[in-house]
Amino acid sequence: MGRVIVVGAGLVGALLSILLSKRGCEVEVFERLPDLRQSNVVNGRAINLTLCQRGYSALDCAGVGDIVRGLSVPVYGRMIHSVKGDLTFQPYGENREAIYSIMRNDLNRALLDYAELQCGVNFRFREKCLDVDLSGISVQMTNSGSGLTTQHTGDRVFGADGAHSVVRQHLQRASRFDYVQRYWEQGYKELSVPANAGHAWTEHRNALHLWPRRDYMLIGFPNLDGSFTCSLHLPYEGNSSFASITTSDALIDFFNGSFPDAVEAMPSLVEDFFSSQPSSMLTIKCSPWTHGNKLALVGDAVHSILPSYGQGANAGFEDCEVIYHCMEEYGDDWGRIFQEYESRRRPNTDAIADLCIEHFSELRDRVGDPKFILRKEIERKLTSACPELYQDLYYMITFTPIPYAEALRRNQAQTAIVDQILDNYNLSAHTTTVEGTNLIDKLIQERLAETRLSAKKLASTLSPLHH
Amino acid sequence: MGRVIVVGAGLVGALLSILLSKRGCEVEVFERLPDLRQSNVVNGRAINLTLCQRGYSALDCAGVGDIVRGLSVPVYGRMIHSVKGDLTFQPYGENREAIYSIMRNDLNRALLDYAELQCGVNFRFREKCLDVDLSGISVQMTNSGSGLTTQHTGDRVFGADGAHSVVRQHLQRASRFDYVQRYWEQGYKELSVPANAGHAWTEHRNALHLWPRRDYMLIGFPNLDGSFTCSLHLPYEGNSSFASITTSDALIDFFNGSFPDAVEAMPSLVEDFFSSQPSSMLTIKCSPWTHGNKLALVGDAVHSILPSYGQGANAGFEDCEVIYHCMEEYGDDWGRIFQEYESRRRPNTDAIADLCIEHFSELRDRVGDPKFILRKEIERKLTSACPELYQDLYYMITFTPIPYAEALRRNQAQTAIVDQILDNYNLSAHTTTVEGTNLIDKLIQERLAETRLSAKKLASTLSPLHH
Repeated sequence: MGRVIVVGAGLVGALLSILLSKRGCEVEVFERLPDLRQSNVVNGRAINLTLCQRGYSALDCAGVGDIVRGLSVPVYGRMIHSVKGDLTFQPYGENREAIYSIMRNDLNRALLDYAELQCGVNFRFREKCLDVDLSGISVQMTNSGSGLTTQHTGDRVFGADGAHSVVRQHLQRASRFDYVQRYWEQGYKELSVPANAGHAWTEHRNALHLWPRRDYMLIGFPNLDGSFTCSLHLPYEGNSSFASITTSDALIDFFNGSFPDAVEAMPSLVEDFFSSQPSSMLTIKCSPWTHGNKLALVGDAVHSILPSYGQGANAGFEDCEVIYHCMEEYGDDWGRIFQEYESRRRPNTDAIADLCIEHFSELRDRVGDPKFILRKEIERKLTSACPELYQDLYYMITFTPIPYAEALRRNQAQTAIVDQILDNYNLSAHTTTVEGTNLIDKLIQERLAETRLSAKKLASTLSPLHH
Repeated sequence: MGRVIVVGAGLVGALLSILLSKRGCEVEVFERLPDLRQSNVVNGRAINLTLCQRGYSALDCAGVGDIVRGLSVPVYGRMIHSVKGDLTFQPYGENREAIYSIMRNDLNRALLDYAELQCGVNFRFREKCLDVDLSGISVQMTNSGSGLTTQHTGDRVFGADGAHSVVRQHLQRASRFDYVQRYWEQGYKELSVPANAGHAWTEHRNALHLWPRRDYMLIGFPNLDGSFTCSLHLPYEGNSSFASITTSDALIDFFNGSFPDAVEAMPSLVEDFFSSQPSSMLTIKCSPWTHGNKLALVGDAVHSILPSYGQGANAGFEDCEVIYHCMEEYGDDWGRIFQEYESRRRPNTDAIADLCIEHFSELRDRVGDPKFILRKEIERKLTSACPELYQDLYYMITFTPIPYAEALRRNQAQTAIVDQILDNYNLSAHTTTVEGTNLIDKLIQERLAETRLSAKKLASTLSPLHH
């Protein structure tokens, strides 16, 4: 299957190298940063992430699923913290559905070890990509230790070098390249809660802890050692923003007012907060992803998404699995493999990118809006009354292998049902009355009856699960 | 007003240098290409362009309007060429409204001469920008002749270096930069019609010649010397595309079938067509445009648009005029000048970018669609019945100083009126009958009566002309 150069030894580059090697490729991986197994590299990416079924499907395909399971903490639902410190647990599903919290570097380390020791992948660190020759195909690298510049040729190149991909920049110059990059208006900083912090909430280790406030939010991810990593999401500017909190006193006041039970478990809050700039979050969509049978981009390099649904790593891992299956199907016809890879993946990653923006916008704009709350209530009742017709978007994304674009289409059809119910209902008059509740129930039953009758028609508008 | 570095000596960079110099700045301009006054530089941009009132307003502000008028050919309307060679003239307006066709290099030369000789602007050619230091503020240049790399400092930097702006790339890395780049699905090649080509249609010099065909199009711009420059717009791939026309015979067959009267006036058609790759057209939108009081981007560097409305140069010139007026208003408060410049211009250039894509898409998708033809007919009747309530979008863009975003808003309000008329009309039943025509007239009269009654209400939804 030839000699393959992978640029980037992050999560996606490392997993891809394993899968390529399993299909018979000779793989060499170049990484700009030092080997994170020898130094604790800070690369500006989030410390924690969550894996769901999509990610594990690709990890299992590579044979590393069980190794990774051993490094992760299962999370069965959200633990909502009120300002008063009340805790409410919301399970993800009725069958102990779980996502898995893991530290990025633990996962990356496991993938690098497996690729190097079990698959014979050759990793070269501190090698910064300077140039990509798309005709050759070759890459030019410079070593940040020795300063030496070297040229490397292969049969093809994969760019797995993240949102600021150098490989993408070269593809961008060579072809008519459509590209969208949009930053989210909020940033985040990571704050640590040590193991044995002593506060009662830290005993709930198998939950994602959420402190949702109107214009900002704190999220706590459990780690294997009993500690938590919290992400504080705040606007860059304005009241209660990274720009407005400039002193320790202001920070402590802000936390005491908004997250009183969190601050008690954060002995290094002031140091954590002031020792770094806020991290930004951005959406990237682009096309084409590939160049003939020579070059393909994977992961964040072609579809950076907001962390709204915890899908970043999962989406990148799905790319790798699709490439693996295309290699099974099309042998060494790399033109075809790359074409199929892009046509199977791009509609789906475009969809999840849009869904993530929508979800963050919704959190910001609509929570607290009575119409939005009513909508959520109707959705909850519909799911519970008729799960086969109405499946929650978060559930489809997180606990099923339904392609993202399909989940988006289904959700649009479902939203139309809720719209019809809302249209028949004089919101302002009845919202919180018994009469109102009964009316909603009646409308849902009517709507479901209609929907069941026309279920065939609905089904015909939805494409099959996999394609 | 300090020392200003302008990167790029194209149309916008040259005009900006004049206006900055008129406001008391010491201006130095660096240009990657050789001086086009000494060599006929081919830079991949279109040979011809059209100027309208917007462009001339800025040129007059700089004192070069009359010089430029002398280099341009007034064009009073469109001359439509049918496949059979029939000619139909469509005037732009009823008062000899004109746009002005000019060769890009003639215009650029005039601006360079005026800036250098009348304003003392210092131009340095063959200087490629390597780096921009946003704190300093300084730029690093390398000379393509001598190979020497030099560093230059100023009080501020303007990036007028076009769609592939190097200055923008540096701003993009330094801040949370939102960016969209989208290529149009068709490209173009330029073909010449020499002076005295001898064909009857070439006598019609004060018209833009159009050969609209369903999936492609030829446009002829008159030049001062009696020649024409024609742009052939074709898809890149598929039937009748740049990829499918690979031999002289295929080219001649294609032209004989689609543009028989054009081919007769094009003695160098085969050479013109096969001597170059098709040029691409792209849309760029981004933000922010400025960095503190140190750096601003202008022209195509921040708003590359499709040529659908002939607005590219006009929009860039409007940028320069707005900067000039902001300097008049805010003295040497450059932070304020840059802030005002971006907030006045960006909504408008975003609007014209969208309008241009819409217009090209419309040309491609809707011409020939009976509903679209009916819509255009209703629009024509509305304009003629009530010009004060209904003004054609092309007219607003080309012959008025109405800001682009305002033109977009007005057009949306107008479109809603046409939608209402169409909704009341059973299209399939009556389109071409007398009954149908009468019904349309009746609906228009009704709608206009209603609209006149509620004209006050309509007016209150439109913001004032200038703001």
